[in-house]
Amino acid sequence: MSGALLDLLRDVAAGALSPEAALERLRHFPTEDIGFARLDHHRSLRQGHPEVVLCSHKTVDQVTSICERLAAAHGTFLCTRVGEEQAQALAARFPALERNAIARTAWLPVEPRPEYVGEVAVVSAGTSDLPVAEEAAVVAGAFGAHVTRVYDVGVAGLHRVLEARADLDRSDVIVVVAGMEGALPSVVGGLVRAPVIAVPTSVGYGASFGGIAALLAMLNSCAEGVTVVNIDNGFGAAAAAARILAARLTREG
Amino acid sequence: MSGALLDLLRDVAAGALSPEAALERLRHFPTEDIGFARLDHHRSLRQGHPEVVLCSHKTVDQVTSICERLAAAHGTFLCTRVGEEQAQALAARFPALERNAIARTAWLPVEPRPEYVGEVAVVSAGTSDLPVAEEAAVVAGAFGAHVTRVYDVGVAGLHRVLEARADLDRSDVIVVVAGMEGALPSVVGGLVRAPVIAVPTSVGYGASFGGIAALLAMLNSCAEGVTVVNIDNGFGAAAAAARILAARLTREG
Amino acid sequence: MSGALLDLLRDVAAGALSPEAALERLRHFPTEDIGFARLDHHRSLRQGHPEVVLCSHKTVDQVTSICERLAAAHGTFLCTRVGEEQAQALAARFPALERNAIARTAWLPVEPRPEYVGEVAVVSAGTSDLPVAEEAAVVAGAFGAHVTRVYDVGVAGLHRVLEARADLDRSDVIVVVAGMEGALPSVVGGLVRAPVIAVPTSVGYGASFGGIAALLAMLNSCAEGVTVVNIDNGFGAAAAAARILAARLTREG
Amino acid sequence: MSGALLDLLRDVAAGALSPEAALERLRHFPTEDIGFARLDHHRSLRQGHPEVVLCSHKTVDQVTSICERLAAAHGTFLCTRVGEEQAQALAARFPALERNAIARTAWLPVEPRPEYVGEVAVVSAGTSDLPVAEEAAVVAGAFGAHVTRVYDVGVAGLHRVLEARADLDRSDVIVVVAGMEGALPSVVGGLVRAPVIAVPTSVGYGASFGGIAALLAMLNSCAEGVTVVNIDNGFGAAAAAARILAARLTREG
Amino acid sequence: MSGALLDLLRDVAAGALSPEAALERLRHFPTEDIGFARLDHHRSLRQGHPEVVLCSHKTVDQVTSICERLAAAHGTFLCTRVGEEQAQALAARFPALERNAIARTAWLPVEPRPEYVGEVAVVSAGTSDLPVAEEAAVVAGAFGAHVTRVYDVGVAGLHRVLEARADLDRSDVIVVVAGMEGALPSVVGGLVRAPVIAVPTSVGYGASFGGIAALLAMLNSCAEGVTVVNIDNGFGAAAAAARILAARLTREG
Amino acid sequence: MSGALLDLLRDVAAGALSPEAALERLRHFPTEDIGFARLDHHRSLRQGHPEVVLCSHKTVDQVTSICERLAAAHGTFLCTRVGEEQAQALAARFPALERNAIARTAWLPVEPRPEYVGEVAVVSAGTSDLPVAEEAAVVAGAFGAHVTRVYDVGVAGLHRVLEARADLDRSDVIVVVAGMEGALPSVVGGLVRAPVIAVPTSVGYGASFGGIAALLAMLNSCAEGVTVVNIDNGFGAAAAAARILAARLTREG
Amino acid sequence: MSGALLDLLRDVAAGALSPEAALERLRHFPTEDIGFARLDHHRSLRQGHPEVVLCSHKTVDQVTSICERLAAAHGTFLCTRVGEEQAQALAARFPALERNAIARTAWLPVEPRPEYVGEVAVVSAGTSDLPVAEEAAVVAGAFGAHVTRVYDVGVAGLHRVLEARADLDRSDVIVVVAGMEGALPSVVGGLVRAPVIAVPTSVGYGASFGGIAALLAMLNSCAEGVTVVNIDNGFGAAAAAARILAARLTREG
Amino acid sequence: MSGALLDLLRDVAAGALSPEAALERLRHFPTEDIGFARLDHHRSLRQGHPEVVLCSHKTVDQVTSICERLAAAHGTFLCTRVGEEQAQALAARFPALERNAIARTAWLPVEPRPEYVGEVAVVSAGTSDLPVAEEAAVVAGAFGAHVTRVYDVGVAGLHRVLEARADLDRSDVIVVVAGMEGALPSVVGGLVRAPVIAVPTSVGYGASFGGIAALLAMLNSCAEGVTVVNIDNGFGAAAAAARILAARLTREG
Repeated sequence: MSGALLDLLRDVAAGALSPEAALERLRHFPTEDIGFARLDHHRSLRQGHPEVVLCSHKTVDQVTSICERLAAAHGTFLCTRVGEEQAQALAARFPALERNAIARTAWLPVEPRPEYVGEVAVVSAGTSDLPVAEEAAVVAGAFGAHVTRVYDVGVAGLHRVLEARADLDRSDVIVVVAGMEGALPSVVGGLVRAPVIAVPTSVGYGASFGGIAALLAMLNSCAEGVTVVNIDNGFGAAAAAARILAARLTREG
Repeated sequence: MSGALLDLLRDVAAGALSPEAALERLRHFPTEDIGFARLDHHRSLRQGHPEVVLCSHKTVDQVTSICERLAAAHGTFLCTRVGEEQAQALAARFPALERNAIARTAWLPVEPRPEYVGEVAVVSAGTSDLPVAEEAAVVAGAFGAHVTRVYDVGVAGLHRVLEARADLDRSDVIVVVAGMEGALPSVVGGLVRAPVIAVPTSVGYGASFGGIAALLAMLNSCAEGVTVVNIDNGFGAAAAAARILAARLTREG
Repeated sequence: MSGALLDLLRDVAAGALSPEAALERLRHFPTEDIGFARLDHHRSLRQGHPEVVLCSHKTVDQVTSICERLAAAHGTFLCTRVGEEQAQALAARFPALERNAIARTAWLPVEPRPEYVGEVAVVSAGTSDLPVAEEAAVVAGAFGAHVTRVYDVGVAGLHRVLEARADLDRSDVIVVVAGMEGALPSVVGGLVRAPVIAVPTSVGYGASFGGIAALLAMLNSCAEGVTVVNIDNGFGAAAAAARILAARLTREG
Repeated sequence: MSGALLDLLRDVAAGALSPEAALERLRHFPTEDIGFARLDHHRSLRQGHPEVVLCSHKTVDQVTSICERLAAAHGTFLCTRVGEEQAQALAARFPALERNAIARTAWLPVEPRPEYVGEVAVVSAGTSDLPVAEEAAVVAGAFGAHVTRVYDVGVAGLHRVLEARADLDRSDVIVVVAGMEGALPSVVGGLVRAPVIAVPTSVGYGASFGGIAALLAMLNSCAEGVTVVNIDNGFGAAAAAARILAARLTREG
Repeated sequence: MSGALLDLLRDVAAGALSPEAALERLRHFPTEDIGFARLDHHRSLRQGHPEVVLCSHKTVDQVTSICERLAAAHGTFLCTRVGEEQAQALAARFPALERNAIARTAWLPVEPRPEYVGEVAVVSAGTSDLPVAEEAAVVAGAFGAHVTRVYDVGVAGLHRVLEARADLDRSDVIVVVAGMEGALPSVVGGLVRAPVIAVPTSVGYGASFGGIAALLAMLNSCAEGVTVVNIDNGFGAAAAAARILAARLTREG
Repeated sequence: MSGALLDLLRDVAAGALSPEAALERLRHFPTEDIGFARLDHHRSLRQGHPEVVLCSHKTVDQVTSICERLAAAHGTFLCTRVGEEQAQALAARFPALERNAIARTAWLPVEPRPEYVGEVAVVSAGTSDLPVAEEAAVVAGAFGAHVTRVYDVGVAGLHRVLEARADLDRSDVIVVVAGMEGALPSVVGGLVRAPVIAVPTSVGYGASFGGIAALLAMLNSCAEGVTVVNIDNGFGAAAAAARILAARLTREG
Repeated sequence: MSGALLDLLRDVAAGALSPEAALERLRHFPTEDIGFARLDHHRSLRQGHPEVVLCSHKTVDQVTSICERLAAAHGTFLCTRVGEEQAQALAARFPALERNAIARTAWLPVEPRPEYVGEVAVVSAGTSDLPVAEEAAVVAGAFGAHVTRVYDVGVAGLHRVLEARADLDRSDVIVVVAGMEGALPSVVGGLVRAPVIAVPTSVGYGASFGGIAALLAMLNSCAEGVTVVNIDNGFGAAAAAARILAARLTREG
Repeated sequence: MSGALLDLLRDVAAGALSPEAALERLRHFPTEDIGFARLDHHRSLRQGHPEVVLCSHKTVDQVTSICERLAAAHGTFLCTRVGEEQAQALAARFPALERNAIARTAWLPVEPRPEYVGEVAVVSAGTSDLPVAEEAAVVAGAFGAHVTRVYDVGVAGLHRVLEARADLDRSDVIVVVAGMEGALPSVVGGLVRAPVIAVPTSVGYGASFGGIAALLAMLNSCAEGVTVVNIDNGFGAAAAAARILAARLTREG
């Protein structure tokens, strides 16, 4: 687009177009062609990673095709909610692919690995929460964080989370994953000073209503300043952590 | 903003700024200053009316102040959900004010009246639906439509709506307002060819759940092509009707 | 149990037990053993049919076994929500079985057929509502009613239900089955004098929420005196119709 | 309207209009003018009462005005959900008015009283359900039923409802009013042969959700053939009972 | 039916029936036989297309049979939510069939193609919304509209929708399809003057609740005059667009 | 009723009625007159307290009248949800009345006080939960328990509940009252061996939905064997505790 | 951990560490290492059983591995929600395994059997509730209770539950399992003095909403002191019963 | 508590208590007395502010008393949701009090003001969202942030938010407040790199359901990494921002 704009400016410079006429034409110029291509450039700059591929609802061919273009352009890609067949196709095509079956992720790491951006702790309440917790952990790692996993520390056995306090204290961001009654973020939020991102999971049955119980509990947390993402959205929690770590780095740099 | 942009263009014309440098500066120019002021201009042009004032949650002073500015700029204003005290203050300030107590509207008509844009029928199921129906009728009238009111024609007495078929047949747009089981838009939608905009009302009790029963019924209408606005949103239905009539006029003109 | 009670009374008659002591013992006597066996007897007397078998969540063997006992005791049985495999097993065992694949019913009619108890019209809005409508029709027939089917008369084409008015007018009870916006019972209730039993169905998608939209519409019907049963509960509507017809017969008899 | 139609027919008879031209004109004749005025006549004939006035959301003047017209036309009227001020205005205007403060009804009885149409039992679970139960009782009485009140027989004290079994057994229709867990209709439905109309009330707190708990319980009743009306809709239950009694009378007459 | 009515009128003309007796007989004449057959005729006239076939919940035989009758009567048919097996049977039977696998539609176009009725833009937020967007696009096309597809322009990348503004500006009606947070119709509604019909999709997970999140967002749009159809109801949006375009044509014609 | 039954038995003893005839008459005897009066007697015996009076929705006169009858019969009464005016009337009438303004209770203690039945701890999360917690504490005390209050120990400050562990360990039953995210019962349930009864409160705002968030959390507690009562139902929790303590005493006695 | 603490204390005793310095170090000592290992010991002591294994969402290998470790440590284990494949693997590995196919449990009983802790009655409304009821019964038995099963006693046939009153009267705790309208706990709660734990089941269809109807009914029970667990949570009810029985034993011991 | 612990340690040092006996006593020592007093100290250290006072549900006396103690201990306090009467009492008592009537806050600033911790932008969609936005702004300011207010930039007029991009780009954390359809956080999240905390408000009517529509939209945001707090929880958003800024400072310091 810059070409069209440059032509216009050159016409002004050459006297072929008066400033007033140029102003009128600029009014009708596709506004977004100026500003938003730049925006996209900013986006990749600030996040250090191309768009993440959500594989659910995509065919094997679609996923492979998207990943090939991402690999060609950036030398890396990251897929979430990868099905078995999708994962096998990607693994066959990209030998360096790193799969995590529990997290349902497939990652082609960029080399050299991204610089260290900070510490993220991923805390989970029960073993059934692992897929969501691992998704958060893998994505946070792919975004450059060092990740500490603190799993199976549900509130019915308080000593477990208390024993992990040293790990929590040294983290820049804490992602807390829990289903059922979703109480763990309140307990963690009361123990630490770091930002706490709560992820409700659909783990449970009956009146858990597919994660609504945990979601509501987290939104009503009595620990001040706990924030929440969508049910089962481990990726979103990691992306929020990346925003926080990126902001921190920016100020330091 | 045009001034700043014009200065830049004049610098280019004068050779004080190269086209390439101008392009670079334009990249950082507040993009929206170019395009969106124009957009706002377009908006008032196409709809023939300034912003409508929703008076709920506003103080008497705020409402009066906003309306004075609107009257000064456009010679007209339209307020919805006007409280008694707000209405009295406006009436004292604007002798030409037209109030509709049932609709809870206050309108300072522009003179001369806006050109005729089409026929709107406002159909309602019961007498308790009148405030919402009247809001739709007043707003549609303020937007230039000729409005026919077809009230109290609930589906438990089918002959009432059937008797009004001539009125329905000559309308360009039909707004159907109903609470309780919200069945009237399905019946009307099956009778007429015109666009039907359904407005659920919060009229009812118990399992009407403040209009949810009517809303769901309208969203699930078996009459094809019925569209729906928010509960009690007579204003929105009239605005949708205005969009349809405006589109029609544009093509004809 | 009567035996134990009779023994006690004989002891009183024989002077072996004083009336006061007998009173004390009766206080601790299993109360229900006296009255409720009689109740059960009344129940079968008044309804003219043994318990109806709901086959969902039952194995083929369980269904067959229950039906054999019912056939032995009463010479008849009626099954609802019958699966294909269950139906085949019953058909192999009972040659006189009458199956209705759409209604998912299996009925071994009693011979001679039960006396005529009244007229039931089953009205449905769309073809997708047929399984529920047919369940109501078959069950009402098995309970002794003469059934008129008035199908596919949704409110978006009013003439269809109006054309069926003669059928509606001669019915003692009208069962109205509808999904989606559930408006049909309101229209029918406004046309007829007979009791109207509304059956919401889970037909629809999106904001029909598995029949909630239709259920709410029916509960909020503007036609006075319409009553409602559970979503997809064709059997329940027929049972309610049978209560009404039985009451009518009792008074006449 | 008959006049206009008669004129047309006379023109045909006089040869002033050909049958074919008359047919064409009839196509455009307001269809409903033929059939539905007759319908309305049928409606008042079959129910023995003019339209019932729902007073909520109406002004004192509106209520008084409507009732005066009803009294003039029919010599009787029946109002539900009557506010204190409305009731006083009606009482001042109509000395023969019968008020029921608990039921919030105001009734000008027709003289002579309507003929006896049958027995209705109104059963309620708790004292807080009385306003709804009384509304049902008063309306059923105004429609010509003899009403037996069986109050305060909640299922936590089973003997209370069992003691009332004689009253239940001699009723043609049973209206069961309950809030909280809404279990009473299931118990009553298992005891009697008559039609059972369940009325959930908004009595309760917390997880009763304004009557939803009772409503859902009644829709899921394990007693076959129980039907349900809207929350707090005592009037609707009485109207349903009137439909059943009217159907019974028709067949007997 | 006209035959029966014509006979009656001829009897009047011939003096075989007095006008008064004819009036009496007309009162009992099936009312709907007069008006509503005409209505049906009007319906096909105004919409230029026979009834659209919703194939879900239908067998292959049912779909084929319906389509054969439609093809025989109208030379065209349109099916939505077509399953693979249904589509293959139709394709084998109708060589001219046009299938759209993503939209799940099967269309036998009428020849010559229907006259051009206007411009419809179908805008969608993400690739997962394509089935619903394509259903809307195919149906609008079959109804005679020229359709412009503007896909994958979610609000998290504003430049994408802004770049499409020229397409939006020249459309008579805009259908906006979005799942997840459903924000796109608000943005589009603020940019354009045309009628905007919002279609929520069930795309999303967790707290999207099968499209409820998007549905609620659209009903609460801050862009005035946006209307909404049921979740995933691409067909309904196209039908609403057709009503608007038809109304426009009528006035112009 | 016993009188009628005794007469019958005396007739049998006197030979005036054969045992067989008596059996027949007993079949028709109001069954519940035998068994359920006894039941009522048992009820008061086992719970050591007359019926508790729920004062909401009752007039001052009704409350006073009921309490006078209870005081006359039992020398004690207990009222919950007592309004200010009701409380003053009771205090004027019963000088020994013990009021608790926070709990909204009014209790006329029986003298001598009921024997000690066990230890109940009432634990609450925040100061806003006090009315519900106090209701539970007062009722449990009136039922004979010694009550320990452990208040303001929400999970965001774990040390507070841990400091109270000695109090928890010596309790026979623990009632845990919490609003907002309702996590406290899970934490307490993991610390103690005693029965834990969770009471959600309507404390909170926004997505607490009047206590639903806390209710769902408690139903999904990861601490095994936690049971739940209705939102704000401090009375119900105390009654459940009384059942447990009574069962314990019975076995010991 | 005790080792580390003991070392510290010995240093104090040896004068190598001043009390003040020891206090400071203790402040930073992992607090939970002191208290919570003890807690865990208490937990197994008081409940007489190791952790119960919830097998849903676990692989066959995970279940087998966990059970082997439990069997090695405790000589017993108890699994709930066991799938067929999991059950077969366990049965092959542990010949003494006791399976209950309806309850979906697998139990390796400890020998000698745990001492008798009390009487639990498990009451259920319908045959479809059996899986949940059996889960409660098996778990209660594994925890040492003697269990009486009172099945198929729904409230529509009151005599059935009344006939079981002797069984109910001799129970220490009563677990009541019901789907549909969930009325049974209210009836049982009114009949007995023992603690009543209500378990809603997901049995039902339509407006039962997967057990919500029953859950709400139980939370609103008019029988005072009934407590509730999650939908289908037979295990939780048994665990609650075990808490009650354990508390009773403790006081007696 | 330290005193008791120090005594114990001194006994060990003095040989009055063996290390082993001390270990045993420490096992029973209130664990939390050691660790959690320290925790509380940490809490105030890291957040630079004492507990914030939520004034709703508190009396004027309670609020005044709490604030006096906070002022004595810390020289500062911050109150949210302050009622008019509470605010006047505080203002009379603390002349330096800073009130914000829209935000409903009352703040006694500490002198000297807390050091600058970072930049927070508070963005709001409409004027009705101001109370929540102002609460966030005042609290963030009290926690040491420099706050930029970007108000009334709803998505229906995109240019408004685009014009504010410079303000957004220089912020460390962005709080986005919106009611109705809640689309603004998605648009902002797509424009900026900083952490975005979304606050749904209860602004709206009908199908906004008190903020549920906005809440769901924000949880389903297509802009990755947006996090959400409770409806109307401006305080919580500011507290989350403070956590992020504190984490940043820690690393930098």
